[in-house]
Amino acid sequence: MPSDTAIPASRAFAGPIVSDVLELAAPLPLDGGQSLEAARIAYETYGTLDADRGNAILICHATTGDQHVASPHPKTGKPGWWDRTVGPGKPIDTDRFYVICANVLGSCMGSTGPASLAPDGQPWGMRFPVITIRDMVRAHVALLEALGVSRLYAVVGGSMGGMQALSLAVNWPDMVDRVLVIAATAAMPAQNIAFQEVGRQAIMADPNWQGGSYYGTGHAPDAGLAVARMTAHVTYLSEATLSEKFGRRLQDRATKSFGFDADFQVESYLRYQGTTFTERFDANSYLYITRAMSYFDLAEDFPGQGPHGSRLVQAFARSKARFCLVSFDTDWLYPTAESKKIVHALSAAGAAVSFVELSAPFGHDSFLLDVPAQDRVIAGFLSPRFLSPRFLSQ
Amino acid sequence: MPSDTAIPASRAFAGPIVSDVLELAAPLPLDGGQSLEAARIAYETYGTLDADRGNAILICHATTGDQHVASPHPKTGKPGWWDRTVGPGKPIDTDRFYVICANVLGSCMGSTGPASLAPDGQPWGMRFPVITIRDMVRAHVALLEALGVSRLYAVVGGSMGGMQALSLAVNWPDMVDRVLVIAATAAMPAQNIAFQEVGRQAIMADPNWQGGSYYGTGHAPDAGLAVARMTAHVTYLSEATLSEKFGRRLQDRATKSFGFDADFQVESYLRYQGTTFTERFDANSYLYITRAMSYFDLAEDFPGQGPHGSRLVQAFARSKARFCLVSFDTDWLYPTAESKKIVHALSAAGAAVSFVELSAPFGHDSFLLDVPAQDRVIAGFLSPRFLSPRFLSQ
Repeated sequence: MPSDTAIPASRAFAGPIVSDVLELAAPLPLDGGQSLEAARIAYETYGTLDADRGNAILICHATTGDQHVASPHPKTGKPGWWDRTVGPGKPIDTDRFYVICANVLGSCMGSTGPASLAPDGQPWGMRFPVITIRDMVRAHVALLEALGVSRLYAVVGGSMGGMQALSLAVNWPDMVDRVLVIAATAAMPAQNIAFQEVGRQAIMADPNWQGGSYYGTGHAPDAGLAVARMTAHVTYLSEATLSEKFGRRLQDRATKSFGFDADFQVESYLRYQGTTFTERFDANSYLYITRAMSYFDLAEDFPGQGPHGSRLVQAFARSKARFCLVSFDTDWLYPTAESKKIVHALSAAGAAVSFVELSAPFGHDSFLLDVPAQDRVIAGFLSPRFLSPRFLSQ
Repeated sequence: MPSDTAIPASRAFAGPIVSDVLELAAPLPLDGGQSLEAARIAYETYGTLDADRGNAILICHATTGDQHVASPHPKTGKPGWWDRTVGPGKPIDTDRFYVICANVLGSCMGSTGPASLAPDGQPWGMRFPVITIRDMVRAHVALLEALGVSRLYAVVGGSMGGMQALSLAVNWPDMVDRVLVIAATAAMPAQNIAFQEVGRQAIMADPNWQGGSYYGTGHAPDAGLAVARMTAHVTYLSEATLSEKFGRRLQDRATKSFGFDADFQVESYLRYQGTTFTERFDANSYLYITRAMSYFDLAEDFPGQGPHGSRLVQAFARSKARFCLVSFDTDWLYPTAESKKIVHALSAAGAAVSFVELSAPFGHDSFLLDVPAQDRVIAGFLSPRFLSPRFLSQ
């Protein structure tokens, strides 16, 4: 691992940034049995694909992320969600790599989702088929084919992005050489299912949800979506972060109001997080994407215990990639134990795998924030000298 | 500590159970500056007050608890919330002790709260004054006086009940000889404030809340209250409990529905918890009680660092009671660290204090569940040989 990976903050992109939407020519089959006609995949690419097409990295975004990994968000104007990690000279170096990031199927930033128009010309709403993490990856694979990328140098993702990276490695084992999975799980734990169910119930309890057919009515379930976001947001942070950032400090007042205003800074902060989220995200997309996450069980199609090990070991049996798993010590939503399960299964499957639990105070959100140790792990793992032994021996 | 505290399950109460409502003759002053006229305190007592009035134990209930500590709940028909702990021959032995449990001020089981009628004959709704944990205790003290109890053998409480026990010890230091505090805190941590704020936002986002004036309209904010309860319920359980109890098991089906029904058992369970809660609890009471909890900071009135130690040390300076603190290793909502802060301050204040972290799998809810070690700690601490040295030397 390089001893110094200082990140230049303001260097301009050397290669082009492409922001586009691909409409798939072929129907996209879905795990639920349906298929989507003319599915659209909104994506961005950074840098240039080498002549030998060997430098492509797919970055997969998290629940409410999007394709704007290192370009300003068109609605909020904020920097890309992984601007600190992706760019010229950054840990995922767009001077060296051709970086692809696509909005997941079911989302609302240009890829087909419940807010898109169905073949009848009306928004899908809840008629949109329930999708899975593998369906999202299937759309990514279709995009890669259209871009002329048949094999990835690496797939990288945190949280739900990590689940997509794992799904790609297991279900398209010949497509990727390096798999970097941050703060993720091989199967959604019950507690996470529970918190996401609370969020969905909050949305569906909002009368403005109208069974999901709120498009064009002038009334969206913003209140319910804000509550869903607030719940999720608390789970993304560590108790230590909340204590240090806000503690019991009051907001713009010296004493308690003895009322129900946002007396505490943490209350004001949460309300702000909830409200601003509704300005950039579609409530139905939130339902579909969290549903896909709750359904995620990487090994469910494998037969289980037997001479070849557990379901998860069997899932990894065909993979030829080198893996790197990263967890954070303060992440209680996707704790280190979840990463270790994956590491153990990979080891049992004979895969090349490295694992590190990083110390960072920010809870699950650490993978998005200022954690220099993560920068070094990413840059090191993507370094050419870390080739998979199994791939080299092919 | 007794080596054997086997609990007879079906022994009848030897002493009388009294279920009554006290209307306070004097106005009840509140921390917010207002006072309540003719406040009503619904309570139950179990057992008989000794001639020397020395065997009274006050039990304080948690957020959504009530006075039915060991008698069937009138709405649900379920056993009292601490039936396993309170009764003849049980850890809090009603053959020996005169046990008092009162519905907290602001609640909805007979004590005055936002659903009660204001002096104008209309329900208080959001006109009800915001109350504090100390206000709840002030009402308890008024009840004790009416019952002829000027000094308690002990005060006992878990979660918000533990906060009341601490408040009594600090603010009425001459009233209690033993203070048993389970799974509580001396000041609500930011993460707990955050989760409770989510719950309040869910209620207030429900159009049926109607600014709190929903009484008699035929529309209560049940959907919002259910979401609030679901959020809170997840925080009461441990990740291990959720994994063991539900894992990723499906509910009444062999395969995923690819829909938004409660596919997983944990989803079905949560929805049930949310719905049934609305049948027994008032949404405005939930707002007021969680507000009181978020405001709780036992030491806030003390001057802070100085020759006599921190605010919390100073808070305990006048107390003559013996304390026992209990936490649970899987309780991440009121973790052991919160109890330790109290123990350290009590020690610095020269108080007699014992502390134990119990191992129990049930998370914060452990204090209500089958934890035999807790039974032994409670029985042992309430044993007459554990008298406060400071009290004996008076």
